Amino acid sequence: MDVYEKSLQCHERWGGKWEVSSKTKVENAEELSLAYTPGVAQPCLEIKADKANAYKYTLKNNLAAVISDGSAVLGLGNIGGLAGLPVMEGKCILFKEFAGVDAVPLVLDTQDTEEVINTIKNIAPSFGGINLEDISAPRCFEIESRLKEMLDIPVFHDDQHGTAIVVLAAVINSLKLVKKDVAQIKCVINGMGAAGTSIARLLMTYGVKNMVCCDKDGILNGKNATLPHHKKLVEETGSQNTVGTLADALKDADVFVGVSVAGCVSPEMVQSMNKDAILFAMANPRPEIMPDLAKEAGARVVGTGRSDFPNQINNVLAFPGVFRGAFDAKATKITEGMKLAAAEAIAALISDDELSDECVIPSPFDKRVAVAVAKAVEDKAVEENIVR
Amino acid sequence: MDVYEKSLQCHERWGGKWEVSSKTKVENAEELSLAYTPGVAQPCLEIKADKANAYKYTLKNNLAAVISDGSAVLGLGNIGGLAGLPVMEGKCILFKEFAGVDAVPLVLDTQDTEEVINTIKNIAPSFGGINLEDISAPRCFEIESRLKEMLDIPVFHDDQHGTAIVVLAAVINSLKLVKKDVAQIKCVINGMGAAGTSIARLLMTYGVKNMVCCDKDGILNGKNATLPHHKKLVEETGSQNTVGTLADALKDADVFVGVSVAGCVSPEMVQSMNKDAILFAMANPRPEIMPDLAKEAGARVVGTGRSDFPNQINNVLAFPGVFRGAFDAKATKITEGMKLAAAEAIAALISDDELSDECVIPSPFDKRVAVAVAKAVEDKAVEENIVR
Repeated sequence: MDVYEKSLQCHERWGGKWEVSSKTKVENAEELSLAYTPGVAQPCLEIKADKANAYKYTLKNNLAAVISDGSAVLGLGNIGGLAGLPVMEGKCILFKEFAGVDAVPLVLDTQDTEEVINTIKNIAPSFGGINLEDISAPRCFEIESRLKEMLDIPVFHDDQHGTAIVVLAAVINSLKLVKKDVAQIKCVINGMGAAGTSIARLLMTYGVKNMVCCDKDGILNGKNATLPHHKKLVEETGSQNTVGTLADALKDADVFVGVSVAGCVSPEMVQSMNKDAILFAMANPRPEIMPDLAKEAGARVVGTGRSDFPNQINNVLAFPGVFRGAFDAKATKITEGMKLAAAEAIAALISDDELSDECVIPSPFDKRVAVAVAKAVEDKAVEENIVR
Repeated sequence: MDVYEKSLQCHERWGGKWEVSSKTKVENAEELSLAYTPGVAQPCLEIKADKANAYKYTLKNNLAAVISDGSAVLGLGNIGGLAGLPVMEGKCILFKEFAGVDAVPLVLDTQDTEEVINTIKNIAPSFGGINLEDISAPRCFEIESRLKEMLDIPVFHDDQHGTAIVVLAAVINSLKLVKKDVAQIKCVINGMGAAGTSIARLLMTYGVKNMVCCDKDGILNGKNATLPHHKKLVEETGSQNTVGTLADALKDADVFVGVSVAGCVSPEMVQSMNKDAILFAMANPRPEIMPDLAKEAGARVVGTGRSDFPNQINNVLAFPGVFRGAFDAKATKITEGMKLAAAEAIAALISDDELSDECVIPSPFDKRVAVAVAKAVEDKAVEENIVR
């Protein structure tokens, strides 16, 4: 039986991967009077007097919503909110198991950008943070940025920033291994959707100067960039007049990050890269180039999104700890600085002795990761003074 | 320390009365591949192919949302969604503890009727049922009826129907005790908000012919009824030309149900009622008339909403079992028939031996109640063929 059939059987047995548990008993009149009426009137009044008290007397202090409109689920595309629910449930149990964050899945019956924004705004009071998930580009940018402006709780589109944090962690350690200076490298990213865009930005924030962003028409430039976020990337990377294919881009590149399509990178393209080339080929389930082919073509560090190859780039290394840290800090948002801190914390868990071509990033099951990420994110939020 | 102060301390210690638990571990690559990627793609695809599969592979089959806009919370009035969150959390743990229903609290950042409806419609796919809570009249009627039309899952405004079910159960047993025929009695209800309106309707459905509905201007009639739901009640009770105060209404009445304000019923009014008068005075925390005064004035059966007097009318007798039964039946709605069945099931739990002036309704902590209600509701849903 393959993993898909087995997963289906498990899902039927579980009938939902999560459940609600009560922290207190309600088995007699006194217990009922404390947890419910009449006693519950008091915390209500305290919150009415000062809404900050919601964090003191309710689960808002530890509760995230994992929200999707199902417009870009896994590699499955636009399957709609309801069909995406098993993914959102999965994410919720990862939040809890990896970082003690309570999270509930919410899938939407709309994919209209304004409706999505308005719906999330309207249910936000219940939550301490919003994890947006599997929302298609470019809608995800508008939805996230508008909600960030409206709400006083962290809003985090994991497909963008979770991926970016883990890629940056892997890049930090890879550069350390091959002894290259981030300010000197040429970095190529292919696939300028949600993940690619955030990866490009976070790598530039970290210090990459020569960043080349490619999409299906090759290097993004003044002519082929029509979407607003593509135009912005052209400005940010200064590629207004740069014309070329992905193959052109990869010549003399030091780092390649693929969040695009299976098989779009050939061995010849890898050969054209600089010595000690670093490749993270994360198309799922089939990467941009298979690791063995990339290695044969001379790449030194190769990572994928898969668990059956070394250097697995998995979001679970980031999002549980990011929310844990944000909640612990009482942060009102998640900033670029917090993301950088998270990436550095993940990278730092690989000791100099452990660091090798096959090990630039911790295992998704390394229990130290969420703790380290949470601490780094919390400290940075306090330092940046974005706490309530 | 009073119950309010003690409740506040408990709420701070709990930091939220509920939490999320995972039904499965995700501690190694295989477990992760089954609960999350890549295996989770399969249940997603099965749901995409047939949305009914969401009930098979996710918690939708057992998950209710407890939703409020905070416009009419307990006796506290319009305190807003956020301040109502402790009540909604309390309701959620009652759902779980009494009937194994998973429920999550959602409080809204809007009180605009259209926005409330639209927001709930947009998040509905995640849930198997919607429990509306503490939404002010008359908005609650529009919100509930519109959502019932739009959605293929049960929508139940507990302040209306939960209360009505429990009152009807108490009335059924009280009439049995005093040996009066429902078709012959005169019944007066005071307070024509959410609860009063639903109580009046359910009692009429059960067989009350002489129903007198009062609000703050006395008996509702063609002149003083301005709200749409009041006008409708005037039609339903045939009180177009009936003029009178609450005192006038109570003359020769057999049953009084108060969901109004403290102290509005005097001993003299009780004296003017028929022999073996039945009073349910449920204003909270101070009832329309205190039980000892009512008894002295000649009432035979007296109930309140309070736990420190006999015959406590408490919604917890109804809503957990109602949703349990609806979920077990795979019901797509909750009908008048299912509410009647629930009331009869609650009433039937009091044996002839137990039945007395001080005992017309089971204790809120009687574990048999939710089971009996669930069975009755499930059977009725199947009988009415409103199952998916």
